[in-house]
This record gives sequence, C-alpha cells and structure tokens, in this order.
Amino acid sequence: MEQIQEAIQRRAADIEEIIRAYLPAETGYQRTVLEAMNYSILAGGKRLRPMLMQETYKMFGGSGREVEPLMAAIEMIHTYSLVHDDLPAMDNDEYRRGRKTTHTVYGEAMGILAGDGLLNLAWETAMQAFPMGEQGETAHMQRIAGAVAVLARKAGVYGMIGGQTADIQAEEAEQVSMEQLLFIHEHKTAALIQAAMMAGAILAGANEQQIRQMERCAYNIGIAFQIQDDILDVTGTMEELGKPIGSDEKNHKQTYVTIRGVEASAREVERLSREAMEILSSVEEDSGFLRELTAFLIHRRK
Amino acid sequence: MEQIQEAIQRRAADIEEIIRAYLPAETGYQRTVLEAMNYSILAGGKRLRPMLMQETYKMFGGSGREVEPLMAAIEMIHTYSLVHDDLPAMDNDEYRRGRKTTHTVYGEAMGILAGDGLLNLAWETAMQAFPMGEQGETAHMQRIAGAVAVLARKAGVYGMIGGQTADIQAEEAEQVSMEQLLFIHEHKTAALIQAAMMAGAILAGANEQQIRQMERCAYNIGIAFQIQDDILDVTGTMEELGKPIGSDEKNHKQTYVTIRGVEASAREVERLSREAMEILSSVEEDSGFLRELTAFLIHRRK
Repeated sequence: MEQIQEAIQRRAADIEEIIRAYLPAETGYQRTVLEAMNYSILAGGKRLRPMLMQETYKMFGGSGREVEPLMAAIEMIHTYSLVHDDLPAMDNDEYRRGRKTTHTVYGEAMGILAGDGLLNLAWETAMQAFPMGEQGETAHMQRIAGAVAVLARKAGVYGMIGGQTADIQAEEAEQVSMEQLLFIHEHKTAALIQAAMMAGAILAGANEQQIRQMERCAYNIGIAFQIQDDILDVTGTMEELGKPIGSDEKNHKQTYVTIRGVEASAREVERLSREAMEILSSVEEDSGFLRELTAFLIHRRK
Repeated sequence: MEQIQEAIQRRAADIEEIIRAYLPAETGYQRTVLEAMNYSILAGGKRLRPMLMQETYKMFGGSGREVEPLMAAIEMIHTYSLVHDDLPAMDNDEYRRGRKTTHTVYGEAMGILAGDGLLNLAWETAMQAFPMGEQGETAHMQRIAGAVAVLARKAGVYGMIGGQTADIQAEEAEQVSMEQLLFIHEHKTAALIQAAMMAGAILAGANEQQIRQMERCAYNIGIAFQIQDDILDVTGTMEELGKPIGSDEKNHKQTYVTIRGVEASAREVERLSREAMEILSSVEEDSGFLRELTAFLIHRRK
C-alpha cells in the first residue's frame, strides 16, 4: 500500500508540472480572473483524472506528449465544476480542503467568471493537442478529435452537468429512487472518470471494443468510489472523512447506503471493484499500475 | 435599407433552423437544465454572429455545411455569456428583451448550470464539424481545428471573459482610462465578432493575411457598434434604444462619449466603419452583402 501511495505521489508531482504549463500568466486588465483561476486549480487536488488518462494512454501503448494538453483540460473541467458548485446559489461552501473557496476570496462575480474561464480554457488547451503545422496525419488528427469530443460530451449535459442538475433536483425531492441515485452517480462522478480513461484509450489508438471496455471499467470505478464515500459517512472517523461523520443522515440525504444498508453496499463495492480489475486484466496484461491505482482509489481512507 | 433588412431577416430564419438542429431534447433526469438552455437561446436574438461567420465563409468561397456546427456553437457561447451576465451576482437583470431572464424563471442554481451547459454544448457542437469517418483529409481537418481554436481563444480570458472581467472592475473604479475602455470593448464586444469572421475565413481556406484582415475588420465593426450604442444612449429615443435615455450618465458610467463627446465619437464611428468597408472591398469584390450587413449593424436604430 505504501509503495503504491509513493508511486501515485510521484506521478501527481509530474502532472502538477504539466498542468502549470497551461495556466495563464497573471497580467493584464483581466488579471483578477486569472488569479482566481490559478488559485482554484492550484489548491492541491490529487490529479486523479489526468492520472487515469495518462495511465490508460500508456497501457494502450501511447508514448507521445499529445495527451498532456488533454490531461490539463480535464483537471480544468473538474476544477471549474467545484468552483461553481461552491457558489452561494449552489452548495454555498466557504471552505474546501481547509482553504477558502474561490468566491469567498474573490467575490461571487469573480467566482462565476473564474469557473467560466476555466471551462473555456479547458477547450483552448485541448485544441493545442492538434498539430497545427504540416506534420499532422489524418488518422492522428481523428484520434485527437475523437478524444476531445468524448471529453466534451462527458463533461456536459449528458455527463457531469446532467448529474449536477439531477442532484440538485433530488435534494429538493422527498423520495429518491435507486435509478435516480445511480443516474446522479454515473453522471456527476463517473462521467469524468470515463472521459479520462476513454480519451486516453482513443488517443493511444485503442479499438472500439477496448474503448467501450474502458467506459465500463470507469463506470465501475466511479460508482464504487461514490458508494465507498457513502459507507465512510456512516462508518468512518472524522479524520478519515474530512467532514463530520453521519452528515448525510443529518442532512436527510438519501444515499446508496441509507437505501440498501452498509453490508449490501460493501458487497456492491467489492463486486464493482472486482469487475473493474477483470476488465483491466483482460484488456492488457501490462495493467499493473492501473489496477493498483483503481484498488487504491476505491478503498482509500479505509 | 428595407431590402437589406429583409435579406437579414431571411438569413436569420435559416440560421434559426440550423441552431435548433443542435439543441437538446428536453428529456431525462436533467430535463430542467435542458429546458433552461433552450429557453435562453430561443429568446429571439438577431443571430448576428453566426450570420457574420456564414457570410465570411461564403465570401471566401466556402460552400460546405461544416460551418453550421460552428455557427450554432458561437450563438451558444454568446447566449451563455448573457445568462451568466444577468445573474444576481453580476448585472442582476430580471428582464432581457422584454422577457424574464433565465435565472428569474428557473432559479439561480439552474441559471448557473444552464450557462455552463450552453458553454460546454458549444464545444460538443463545434467538435461535430470534424468528419469522424474515413473521408477526412488532413488539410480539411486542420482548417476545422484552426477555426475551433480561434473560437475558443476569442471566447476565453484573452477574449470575451477577459473583457467581462475588466468591465466589472471598471465599474468599481473611480476613473477609467481610454486604454482600459478600448480593452473592454475590444474583448467584451469585438472578440466574438472577430471569432465569427476569422473562423468563417479559416474554414473556407483563407490565407494568413486574409485572416488577419478579417480580425481587423471585425475589430472595427465591434468598436464602432459599441460607440454607436453609447452615442444612442445620449441622443436616441427611448423607443430606439429599448432602455431609458441617458442611463449611462445616470449610472455614472464612463463611455467613449462621456470622455470624447458626441461629435468626435460620431466621427470615430465613421472612420472605423469606412475602414471596415475598405478591408472587405480589398479582400474580395464579391463582398456586397457583408458590406451592407456591416453598415446596417453599425448604423442600426438611427
């Protein structure tokens, strides 16, 4: 376990450098929004989405640097969603990871604009994956276009934004069905993980079936991750969780665990996790790190 | 004048159909955000940006349908910027064009998500310009990538979002310099017009010099459009303007006109307009409609 943690930390440090290379310099009349964007994205996330993208890319034999702008782009998308989620009209959070949220520091208008700026910068950055000179070849450009298109779809109203919408509406509803709950987890949590692994696979030239397998594998990782989170809310310690224990129940929030119970939920996490591992093993013998990373992600903080 | 107005209306009706083809069906657990997005974009804008894109594309000999997803995308970007601009933390507007603003109808959280959804949908839509089968050729794909990249840059922190940031900060400042004012107009207003004309030119295969000329031409159109707006605020009638006359002065808002006076401002509009026309004539003899459209845009409501 310690070995994998060290390996993850080393990779996260490399990814940090890649992301920084695509961040704006804080100058000009629009300086404030640039500062707010950098403040948001440099808050020290675990960079799991770019890491999953890069590792999937490598697993399918990718070895170029074309994946780097897309790694930066997916982290910008993840970050903008947190910035907008924290706004007063949304979750109204003053702190995130022990640090003041963007709108708390820069004001609400800048919080909105910094989120918009990060989402748009994600696409400016993703477009840099295209070779703009003469050296591009058609198949290569089609892979890039395919990867960017998947990222765009999974981030949007048929992906993450769709999940956020359903989540907000579920909070207002009295009763949430299991179908609705899984829709929320699939879209709000799993969609960007799917984007990460699918984009990595597409860029590396994986075939259609392999891309579908990555979509399925990432679905399992996302849902297992989320159920594990709900289990920890009931069984974990304050220290492990970073938020008060049982806060879901106190907020009358319905989760997988409140509907199915802890034991059945833990069995479902195991099932999803095992299936994800099997997919990775079946796709590629050389999936060792990605399998360890998956296990670490799902069983983290336990 | 009436003839050009009719021609513009006919083209706007065609563009309306193109935009509708890319809008989401209002179904699923995320239905509310889809409804809010459609409500926002179907509020009856003049579709000037897609029109300028299409006409520039045609002027440079473009005749395919690859321009259509980008036309829809630029209108989605324009619309999201209005939705977020109207939010309570920004301009706090309850009405736009005599219709309740998006957040007034759907609530503030949905206003934020609908804007995010439209911005993201713009990139999902733009990516559809790429031929995804085998038929793509490299030069063609590079033109599309170039057009999408220009759109992304002009919409972001070095374009429109940069202008919005500077505008918000200017409102809080006691004194605004002419340099700052022109920065705001260039970025907040002209940048998307530049994106429209440059993307149209790039898609049609225009050369580097022609693309620069379109950037300059669109700059002139955007700045002239904005100064003309400020002139009308002083000299126009309530009916022409759609808002109370002299509202800038009442809001202590510094404009080109409050700094330079009406006469000098009108001369500047003429100069910018004449230069834009000259560029269009020099680039292409067959620029008749685009020149008329430019004149109409700049001298509208007079």
